[in-house]
Amino acid sequence: MNLPLGYRYAAAYAGIRKDKRDDVALIVSDEPATAAGVFTTNMVQAAPVKLARKHVRKGKISAILVNAGNANCATQTGEHVALLSCKAAAKSLKTKVNRVLPASTGVIGVELDPKLLTDAIPGLAKGLAADQFVDVAKAILTTDTRMKVATETVHLKDGAVSIAGMTKGSGMIHPNMATTLGFVMTDAAIAAPVLRELLADGVAQSFNSLTVDGDMSTNDTLALLANGASKVKPGGRELKTFRDALRKVLASLAEQIAADGEGARKLIVVRATGWKSDEDAARVARAVANSPLVKTAIAGSDPNWGRILCAAGYAGVVFDPRNVSVSLQDVEVCKSGLAAEYEEPALKKSLDGNRVEISVENEKRGKGEARIFTCDLTEGYIRINGSYRT
Amino acid sequence: MNLPLGYRYAAAYAGIRKDKRDDVALIVSDEPATAAGVFTTNMVQAAPVKLARKHVRKGKISAILVNAGNANCATQTGEHVALLSCKAAAKSLKTKVNRVLPASTGVIGVELDPKLLTDAIPGLAKGLAADQFVDVAKAILTTDTRMKVATETVHLKDGAVSIAGMTKGSGMIHPNMATTLGFVMTDAAIAAPVLRELLADGVAQSFNSLTVDGDMSTNDTLALLANGASKVKPGGRELKTFRDALRKVLASLAEQIAADGEGARKLIVVRATGWKSDEDAARVARAVANSPLVKTAIAGSDPNWGRILCAAGYAGVVFDPRNVSVSLQDVEVCKSGLAAEYEEPALKKSLDGNRVEISVENEKRGKGEARIFTCDLTEGYIRINGSYRT
Repeated sequence: MNLPLGYRYAAAYAGIRKDKRDDVALIVSDEPATAAGVFTTNMVQAAPVKLARKHVRKGKISAILVNAGNANCATQTGEHVALLSCKAAAKSLKTKVNRVLPASTGVIGVELDPKLLTDAIPGLAKGLAADQFVDVAKAILTTDTRMKVATETVHLKDGAVSIAGMTKGSGMIHPNMATTLGFVMTDAAIAAPVLRELLADGVAQSFNSLTVDGDMSTNDTLALLANGASKVKPGGRELKTFRDALRKVLASLAEQIAADGEGARKLIVVRATGWKSDEDAARVARAVANSPLVKTAIAGSDPNWGRILCAAGYAGVVFDPRNVSVSLQDVEVCKSGLAAEYEEPALKKSLDGNRVEISVENEKRGKGEARIFTCDLTEGYIRINGSYRT
Repeated sequence: MNLPLGYRYAAAYAGIRKDKRDDVALIVSDEPATAAGVFTTNMVQAAPVKLARKHVRKGKISAILVNAGNANCATQTGEHVALLSCKAAAKSLKTKVNRVLPASTGVIGVELDPKLLTDAIPGLAKGLAADQFVDVAKAILTTDTRMKVATETVHLKDGAVSIAGMTKGSGMIHPNMATTLGFVMTDAAIAAPVLRELLADGVAQSFNSLTVDGDMSTNDTLALLANGASKVKPGGRELKTFRDALRKVLASLAEQIAADGEGARKLIVVRATGWKSDEDAARVARAVANSPLVKTAIAGSDPNWGRILCAAGYAGVVFDPRNVSVSLQDVEVCKSGLAAEYEEPALKKSLDGNRVEISVENEKRGKGEARIFTCDLTEGYIRINGSYRT
């Protein structure tokens, strides 16, 4: 794993989670990094989200302070706790308060004892090291079953720049925006306005094309830091090369979230092609990706294309079903709105795998297309969410 | 059960379902009845839906021909099968083809052999009897675990009129419109235009306020017949009395569908009050009712109000969470966006019951309100839908 230069990481157990697993972490850039962020659009926003938004707007971030186990949302003391912990981190790291980006994930509506955070911060600051990226990636997980990281390195004329991202899922995930938490660091030198554009571009095809259960969290935060430690500043055509690498990192992280959706056994990639516009295609793909009937059918390896066509039918897009075909794993199961001939046993076997591709094509061959990541819906989702809090 | 006069019923097994349970039925009015209907708005519509819409538009219906086990949707021969079976029913019943209302429910995309229907119809016509209402109510069920019927009788100055309704659930149910199949008969004499208004009024607070899984079927059909056999024609104020009775029947049927949602153990009634408009209230109530995280929490008797507040937050309605309170079973668990004090063990016990009331109140005390019926989300839903077709 080629990590970007100039970042250090630390994670620890602060007693926020019930089970004794790291629940607080720091990501520190040795030099203040330019920063861009996207945040939940939920009307109910956690205190750290509001503060992070404010701090990112200033354009420079030195540290990300993150905790799992408590969302610090809808509580009496939320804003106080978020600010207090940023202050403690700033003090330990000898930086400004508004250069600390706070992020929290976990249960909503339970007061978070600020002492748990402030007591842990000095130790974290002391323990920072460049090779503890994975420790932080693990500390931010909640109901996730595995760590989610992605890295890319691109070689430009002035040298190499690296990008490393980590994220966590895995329920309460829905487009606009879709992240829960994600942190992406690069050692490229990129001005804040450009960084914001790059992030917006990369998010559209990744985190905002993701749905697990149609729920959208109060805490969603995706931050991108660029500290320039590589001394390489991509410009002109090189910016495209960098953008493509960033897209890859973000798309990989989004796919990993979908594949590890709560209770999921399968990643589902829904493609809509041939529609009048990208918006129409996205509506169709999302309706299919959000349909519990489709997601349970895929869980059961059932090529039930009727449910897929039906979900497209209520997507809010006007179309004639006689122009629509549906493929599963590139096998056409519905052509022009009617059953197509295919070998069911072979297809069912292929649907038993851990990646399922659904394609909903409008035979009118419009230019609109979209791709949405989701996962199957299994008993596991119910088990996890029926008893998460208690 | 006070059944309306002038209707006869019959059900039989025609071999459409795999298991040997009645799967075809007739509801016949001795005199042609005025009729009103509401149908799915899905772009993909089953052949019988298209034909039923056309026949209802003529204003008079003599018979409803219904089958379960096959939706007669997205098939090559669908329109042929629907028309052929209506013709067979018209012949056996000595009525016009366009006075037969066809309806189907079951799997999508599998050809329906018309012979199964046409062979069964003469026997059904011969076996019609006034006391077989329940047999038909049972024949239309698919994954339902119980029959869903409701009746009301009102005494007007010229005599009594009765209303009897039957319906079936239980997955693929979502507002606008929400029914799968529902048939409501009355012996009142009511002109078709008035009947249409009455149905539209009653549907708003019942079938269109219902959601099980956010999926909307290709076959949803709700028909209301009035044959005048009571010789009573409600007018003026009496029409309000009749309307209220019809509302009761429709609301009861809708509640029964939600309570018997696939895998459901609990009926959930979500009320939103104090919002700026009824539309805002409906958006909030629906977001809460559709949230898998809320529905799984209720399944686990977990008073996790954070998820409720969070769902309200992405409903698309602008509000300040500090003005919102949440109650479960009339116990305030969140006040002004923060945790309220309450006795958790007592509330959890109450949530173990089979009816859960969630109230999301805007403390700004606007006049907008809404009520949505739904159900909890359990492993049962997954089991039923992971292997429905195969």
